[in-house]
Parts: sequence; structure tokens; C-alpha cells
Amino acid sequence: MGEIFLYEIAGTAVLTLLGVGVVANVIIGKTKGFGGGWLLINVGWALGVFCGVYVAFKTGAHINPAVTFGLLASGAAEYAPGIPVTFGNTIAYLLAQLIGAFIGAVLAWMTYKKHYDQEQDQALILGTFATGPEIRSYGWNFVTEAIATFVLVLVIIMFGSTPTELGPLPVTLLVLAIGASLGGPTGYAINPARDLGPRLAHAVLPIPGKGGSDWAYSWVPIAGPIVGGVLAGLVSTVLVAN
Amino acid sequence: MGEIFLYEIAGTAVLTLLGVGVVANVIIGKTKGFGGGWLLINVGWALGVFCGVYVAFKTGAHINPAVTFGLLASGAAEYAPGIPVTFGNTIAYLLAQLIGAFIGAVLAWMTYKKHYDQEQDQALILGTFATGPEIRSYGWNFVTEAIATFVLVLVIIMFGSTPTELGPLPVTLLVLAIGASLGGPTGYAINPARDLGPRLAHAVLPIPGKGGSDWAYSWVPIAGPIVGGVLAGLVSTVLVAN
Amino acid sequence: MGEIFLYEIAGTAVLTLLGVGVVANVIIGKTKGFGGGWLLINVGWALGVFCGVYVAFKTGAHINPAVTFGLLASGAAEYAPGIPVTFGNTIAYLLAQLIGAFIGAVLAWMTYKKHYDQEQDQALILGTFATGPEIRSYGWNFVTEAIATFVLVLVIIMFGSTPTELGPLPVTLLVLAIGASLGGPTGYAINPARDLGPRLAHAVLPIPGKGGSDWAYSWVPIAGPIVGGVLAGLVSTVLVAN
Amino acid sequence: MGEIFLYEIAGTAVLTLLGVGVVANVIIGKTKGFGGGWLLINVGWALGVFCGVYVAFKTGAHINPAVTFGLLASGAAEYAPGIPVTFGNTIAYLLAQLIGAFIGAVLAWMTYKKHYDQEQDQALILGTFATGPEIRSYGWNFVTEAIATFVLVLVIIMFGSTPTELGPLPVTLLVLAIGASLGGPTGYAINPARDLGPRLAHAVLPIPGKGGSDWAYSWVPIAGPIVGGVLAGLVSTVLVAN
Repeated sequence: MGEIFLYEIAGTAVLTLLGVGVVANVIIGKTKGFGGGWLLINVGWALGVFCGVYVAFKTGAHINPAVTFGLLASGAAEYAPGIPVTFGNTIAYLLAQLIGAFIGAVLAWMTYKKHYDQEQDQALILGTFATGPEIRSYGWNFVTEAIATFVLVLVIIMFGSTPTELGPLPVTLLVLAIGASLGGPTGYAINPARDLGPRLAHAVLPIPGKGGSDWAYSWVPIAGPIVGGVLAGLVSTVLVAN
Repeated sequence: MGEIFLYEIAGTAVLTLLGVGVVANVIIGKTKGFGGGWLLINVGWALGVFCGVYVAFKTGAHINPAVTFGLLASGAAEYAPGIPVTFGNTIAYLLAQLIGAFIGAVLAWMTYKKHYDQEQDQALILGTFATGPEIRSYGWNFVTEAIATFVLVLVIIMFGSTPTELGPLPVTLLVLAIGASLGGPTGYAINPARDLGPRLAHAVLPIPGKGGSDWAYSWVPIAGPIVGGVLAGLVSTVLVAN
Repeated sequence: MGEIFLYEIAGTAVLTLLGVGVVANVIIGKTKGFGGGWLLINVGWALGVFCGVYVAFKTGAHINPAVTFGLLASGAAEYAPGIPVTFGNTIAYLLAQLIGAFIGAVLAWMTYKKHYDQEQDQALILGTFATGPEIRSYGWNFVTEAIATFVLVLVIIMFGSTPTELGPLPVTLLVLAIGASLGGPTGYAINPARDLGPRLAHAVLPIPGKGGSDWAYSWVPIAGPIVGGVLAGLVSTVLVAN
Repeated sequence: MGEIFLYEIAGTAVLTLLGVGVVANVIIGKTKGFGGGWLLINVGWALGVFCGVYVAFKTGAHINPAVTFGLLASGAAEYAPGIPVTFGNTIAYLLAQLIGAFIGAVLAWMTYKKHYDQEQDQALILGTFATGPEIRSYGWNFVTEAIATFVLVLVIIMFGSTPTELGPLPVTLLVLAIGASLGGPTGYAINPARDLGPRLAHAVLPIPGKGGSDWAYSWVPIAGPIVGGVLAGLVSTVLVAN
């Protein structure tokens, strides 16, 4: 179980460091990537997954509670080679992912420390840490997150049915696809830890004039991805079995 | 034959969900990807193919009637390992692709529901579902779609002649290439199901003030890709035989 | 020798169709990719190489006289498995590449026919077919093309020293790199056929108000790449031998 | 040891030629890539690494002192197959990298010679050669470079723990990730040679009205990457051992 904590914390921290970092680069003032656009943000998050997967390779590189729940729902016997699906291991994955996401957000804040200090716009500061909807509608925002995460987890599980050997590249491109195509309304959390961990970091870090952490919305990027991931796990049993 | 329906519907639905989704993200108002540009659209559609291929791997992942017709014209004996080229299987592929494309478009609409509700521009709404020409000229639009699909199907068939093992990556990059290079005049349907399925969804879905579905143009992205695909299948017999 | 003509013509035609096409998409008016930027152009040309390599795989996919000259200078015994380095084969490669590049440009013009008909700017029309310098200085333009092609051919030859199996992906990324990094002054012909073939097509095609084909500059994208390619072939003998 | 010099000089020169080149293309006036944006710069540098790794493959392709120091700190026995970790070899790597980076910058200047001659903005000229902070704060700039290089070297070392065979692609995507996500404040030197070599070239080359080389900042992109690389080497012993 120590292995789960070690690798899932490290992997999720790398993911979130790179993910929060790219948003800071694009939307916080006076950075070199300022105004770099949505594709740059998509590339940053996708490659955050790429790097996180290498770091967390030994524990199957979930680095996302929706993946853990999806595997659970799919009836898998192991979370990774040698790591059985048990209640304790499930909790270990989830906790480690949350801790890692928090640490990654703190490191991203350190990387952009002087830029955060000078930024005045509260919404932009929060927007680098946590996701938020462009049009607030809890029900439809939930639907968007559930559909996007359904695609994420379903295709991840389908990877296992094909013989190609591309390592972490497919999941990277999958995350790029979801960001480009389905991220428009809510900013594609598609990962409860990725949203809650940095939101906690935002609440705690000493950022001048940072404003609130929008806890009213925070359940959507948790519930949507979990529901989407579980549905994908269930549907995958039909597609993989055939 | 149930297998063909299962996988081609699922794969084409994922393709169209991600493809319609990226266009909605870039051209419909108030999204995070608004104004993201042509390359973002190309990336979204290309990765839609990437993900769709993983999902439909077991049936050869045609997810495009032009590919099915191209293989037919090339004289291939099987559509995928264990699936012989028969009249019934051909119909199954085509029907499944159309159904999948319709479903994918509906899911994309659900993902962007609140944004569609607020969009006022009828042309933009239709533009997320179906392709349309920048300069309307049915003859030359047909030529454009035929050339683009010829390249698509010819290069897909040539993949089989090389020893590299990159899985769905080559077809993904091929679609990216065609979008970037040949998509300028008509928006590169290069896939009759990808155009007709979402166009039907546009006609049916309850989108406020959506306008007509431009059926006058709808034959071009069907006929052009089929002709291009069949020509590629025929030409490939020369290139592969040598 | 028929094989060389068949595959090098087909491969270079695909390269040039996609390459000329992407520039037309980005700089000719009323296209969907208008104003798409330099990265989009780089992606289009790089993927044109990607697709061209698959098509011309059986003859080693030179699809570029600078590669043929570079291999000649490196002292290679074969241009591709089973194709010895002879005077006749060398001429066959060069001729086929020129013919293929001409055909590809004609196909790209057909794809964008109505857009070419409406374009008024002579420089933009020519710019889709042939390269031209931003600051005209034949000597330094030559240096730029020679350096860029030196990198192209040297790294292509070095690919053979490594054990990875990525198929045409490395050369694709290499061309993307050269376009992004070294294409700024002259538009990176780095391939005499890619420039001369489409320039001939420009001279011949019935494009309204097309203007001259800038033959005064045309020797630079021929001589620069040949010199760069030959130098790379010579230098490679040091790097590969060690 | 001659091998180390040969390959590390050649590889680092290719890296720096493409890296300095892409920045020149994007920020120096009258180039085709002018205003191409941060993602284009990230792509250019990442692919510079890609190409440099192929060229320097035989000596392990460090092409970066932070990698050499990271391997040293990780307790590795060899820098590459057949090249033991010795004091002499360490010095050879570092010297060769610095020399190569200098040569690459000179070649990039030759490629963009006429554009440098016409550029009036001293900061832009220097910005193509060496990195500089958007908000000058030596302490936090150091932190940024150390964190970014920590990620670089840690993930590179983790590559060795996974079975995938993607050649130089992972490190390329890793550098793209770091540029997109962590490059915003300082321009991600993450490589002391990449910064010092071109800075020396800037000091020496006859560029009209070039201004100073900002030596006051020059220690940050040396010390930050070395500290980050050494820390990554130490931390990797925990992650790899488990």
C-alpha cells in the first residue's frame, strides 16, 4: 500500500503541476505564454498526463479517481499488476491522488509565484487552480463532465484490447481530444482529484486578493467524473467481452 | 453481424461526439475554446478518429463508409480479421456508421446544450453538425471531397504495406493532414456518415432557432467521399501489387 | 526502374498536394483555414511527408532530390533495399520526384479551384506553389536553405543508427522542426522538386491574373538544398562510422 | 572520450540551432513565423531535443549538463552504454555541450542573418539567444528553473522503468510539456549549456546594435537547472528502487 501512496502521489503531483502550470502560463498576466489559447492549455494538460503516467507507472498510473472507480465498476481483479482490488487499496488510490493533486498545485504556484502576486483578477487566479463553467447550470455542467469522463474511462479500458505498444501516448492523445472537443463548457475536470486538490490549495495558499474558492460548484467536477467513470466501467464489460 | 453493429456504432459515435464537439467548442459562443482556430478543429477531428479506432478495433474500425467502399473496390477478401466481404456485412457497416454518427452528434449536443440554447447564428449551429462549402459550387465541392477522400483511403490502404507498428496513430495523423491541407474549401467531410448522421441529428434535435439543415448540399459529402474512396481502392491495387 | 517512377511519383505527388494545399488553406482568401498561422503550415507540410513516405515506402521514400543526393554523397550502396545506387536510378529518382511534385500541385489547385479563381493577390497565389524569401538576398537565402537541408538529410541518415521503430514519424517531426525553426527566412523548400515542380505548375495552370513565377529566385531552392544534402551525406560518414 | 565530444557537440548544436532558430522565427521581424506564439516556440525547442537526441544517440544524448549532473547524482554507473561515470567523462560531457550550444547559436544566426541585421530591438535580439525572466526576481526565477528541471530530469530517469519503445519521443513531449506549463516566468532554460552557449555567441557575434548580454541574470539558468537536476537524481533513487 506504501507503493500506491508513493507513486500515485508523485504521478498526480506531476500531472497537476503541469496542468495548473499551463493554465497559469496562458491566463495569468506577464507570462511568456499569455494568451496562448485553448490548444496550448489542452497540450499542457495532456502532456501532464503523459509525464504523470511515467512517474506512476508501477501502480498502473490511475492518477485519477474516475479511473479507479471505472476499473472497480468494470469488475477488474487488479488495479495494476500485483495490486488487487480491495477496499483498502481503493481508499489508498483516492487519498494519494488527492494529496498529489494538492502538492502539484502548490508547486505550480511556487513556479508562478511572482505572477500570482501581481494578478488582480480573482476569477483568473481561481481559474488556474480549479475548473468552472462558462454557463453555470449545475445539471448540464454535470452532464458535460459525466459524458467527457465516460469517454475518457471507456477508451482507456479499450486500450487494453488492442495490440499496439505506444506506452502512455494513447491516453495523452485521449486527454488532448477530450479537452479540445468536450472541454468547452466546463473546462474538463474529468478527474475529481485534479479539481479538489488544487481547489484546496487555492483555499490555503497565501495569494494576495485571491477571493473565494467557489465551493458551490465543487461537487460537479467530483460527481460528474465519478458517474461517468462508473458508467464507462459498466459499458466496457459489454465491449470487451464480445 | 451483431459485432459489426456494436463496434461500428460505438466507434463512429465516439468519432462524431469528439468531432462535432470540437467544432462547437471553437465556433459556438461562450465556450472555453471559442475562436481556437482551424488547427484546433483539425486536432479534434483527428483525435476523434484516434479514439474511435480504439473503440471499433475488433471490426477493423472503418467508422467511415468511404473506407468500407474503398476496401470493397480494392478487392479485399475481409473487412477485418474474420469478417468476410459480403453484401450483408457491407450494409451492416454502412448502417452502423450512420447510426453511430447520429448518436455521437446527439451526445455532442448534450455536452454543449446550454451553449446551443444561447447561440443565435443559424449557420454556426448547422456548421457544428454538418459540413458546408465556403464557396458554393457543387461540382468543385464534389471534386474537393473526392480528392481529399482519395488521399484518405489510398494512404490507409498503403499503411498495410509497411512494417511499422503505430496502431491508430498513422490514420490520426492522416486525418489531421487532410483537414489542414485539403479541408479549406468544404470542411472535409471525407466520410458520408460523419456528415449525414449529424445532419439528421440537426434536423431532429430541439435547438432553438436552428434554421434549415441545407439538404441541397447534403449529397456532395456523400457522393464525393464514395467516389474518392472507390477510386483509391482501385488505384491501390496497382500500388500494393507492385 | 518502373518501380522508382511509380512510387516516387505517387509519394511526391501526395507530399506536394498536401503541402501546397495547406499553404492555400492558410493564405488564399475565403478558406476555412485562412489566417491559420505558421504552425498550421508546418503541420501540413510535415504530415505531407508522413503520408508521402507511406505511399513511396517501397523505393525508400526519398521524395526529395536532396535526400537522393545526400545518400549518394554518403557512399550508400543502395537507395532502398534492392535498388542499387546507379546513374540511371539516380536520374529516375530525380525525374520522378519532379513529375510527382508537378502533379501534386495540379491536384492542390483543383482542390482549391474556386478560391484561386477569386484571389487577386499575385504574391499569395505564387506563395502557395513555390517558396520565396522574406528578405531577398540570394547569398544568404542560399545559406539558409543549405543549413536547413543539411539538418534534414543529416538527421535522416542518423535515424538508421538508432534502434527505435517509429516508421515515418521521425522524419515527419524533423520536417516540422525545420519548418518551425529554420523556415522563417525562405519558407524552407529543403527539396528542389517540391519547389520546381509546383513552380512549373504555376507557370502552366490557367489561374486568372496569376502574375510571374519568379524564375530569378528559382535556383536558390534547388542549389541550396542540393549543397546542404551533399554536405550532410559527407558529414554523416564521420558520425555513422564512429 | 573523443566520442563524447563528437556526439555531444553535434547533438547539442542541432538542439540549439533549432531552438534559437524557432525563437528568431517567432520574435524577430519580417520572418514567416513572426507572431507565431508560445506553442510554436515550445514545438521548436521540443523537436530540437528530438533531433539532437538522434544525432547524439551513441553517447546517451545528454545534450544538457542538468541531465549529466542528474545521472551523476542518481548513482548511475554509466553515462551511456560503455561510457563509465568518471570525472574526466563528466567534464567532457559538460564542455562538449557548451561548445555545441555555441556552435548551434552561430548557425541559427547565419540562418537568420539578414533578419538580425534589420532588427532594432535589443531585447528581442538577446531573447533569441538566451533566456530571461518576465518578472525579474533572482530567487523566484531560480525556483522556477529548479522546479522545471527537476521535472525534466526526474521523468527522464523514470523513462527507464517502463517497457515502451518510443525512442526520443518521450523526452520530446516532456520538453514540450515543460515549455508549455512551466516556461512562462523564465523561458525554461532547464539546460545550462543551452543558455550559456548562445549567450556567449550573442556576446561575440557581429550583430548591429545588439546591446548587452545580461550577464547579471546568467547564473540563474545555470544554477537553477543544476540544482533541479541533482535533486531529481537523488529523488529518483527512491522512485526507481521501489
